[in-house]
Amino acid sequence: MDPQRLMQLAIDAAQDGIEKGQSPFGCAIAIGERVLACRHNSVWMTTDATAHAEINAIRQANLEYGSIFLPEATVASTCEPCPMCMAALHWARVENVYYGATIADAADAGFNELHLPAASLLEMGGSDIHLNPDCLRDECLALFADWISRNPQAY
Amino acid sequence: MDPQRLMQLAIDAAQDGIEKGQSPFGCAIAIGERVLACRHNSVWMTTDATAHAEINAIRQANLEYGSIFLPEATVASTCEPCPMCMAALHWARVENVYYGATIADAADAGFNELHLPAASLLEMGGSDIHLNPDCLRDECLALFADWISRNPQAY
Repeated sequence: MDPQRLMQLAIDAAQDGIEKGQSPFGCAIAIGERVLACRHNSVWMTTDATAHAEINAIRQANLEYGSIFLPEATVASTCEPCPMCMAALHWARVENVYYGATIADAADAGFNELHLPAASLLEMGGSDIHLNPDCLRDECLALFADWISRNPQAY
Repeated sequence: MDPQRLMQLAIDAAQDGIEKGQSPFGCAIAIGERVLACRHNSVWMTTDATAHAEINAIRQANLEYGSIFLPEATVASTCEPCPMCMAALHWARVENVYYGATIADAADAGFNELHLPAASLLEMGGSDIHLNPDCLRDECLALFADWISRNPQAY
């Protein structure tokens, strides 16, 4: 699937999450033209520190596809995956990951990020996932602006 | 709680998981003397690439404690946390992590590990979690031996 079209789904999910009081992150996963999952972050809603958008989307995609492996999957995440999510995508054997905002942007917004770029984790860890930055970056950054205007809580 | 006692709970959980056809990993989390969670890996059982023992335990502990944050928590994991799990423990703000076997041991057993030691991730990422290796290491390694004797599948 066209990465920008997949990213728009992730952005729409993030926007939906923001309106429900969640953190401004979304993720969509497709294999070919089949969208397997599209989820927003639900850390507050579910009282679950692991419920980042990517983790939620992987779990949904695994069930939808009937496998822990998502070969040739394309992932669009509104923000560069944190090490938890990047490593989870490695375990799920996805092929391509597109993202818009960066870990540095999320840290600037107040999130307690581990300061390790996804590209560094993949290179040091020996993963062959293809990482593609700057996908609809302005639209992904706008999610933070909307979120901040609502006087939210980071974690 | 005494780390070795907590680790024994994690080992018992891992053993239970092995007997159910799961991968040989367990994790227990306590605050003070209160055990909040004790779980084994359930990746195969739940068709969920993210269902490592630590992720399962964090999710349970968050619900049990009623918070995404687990301040002053002690964690015992039968194996050194992979980057997904180490970063998840950072997000949950735990204080101490004890482990027995290492990521290298898990890779030797056939798991598709990202080759990044937990200590490196914490140092590069700027986390202040205290990491404590070699807790009941022989007993944790024995879990791999039992698991391998059952002709299992790694991922």
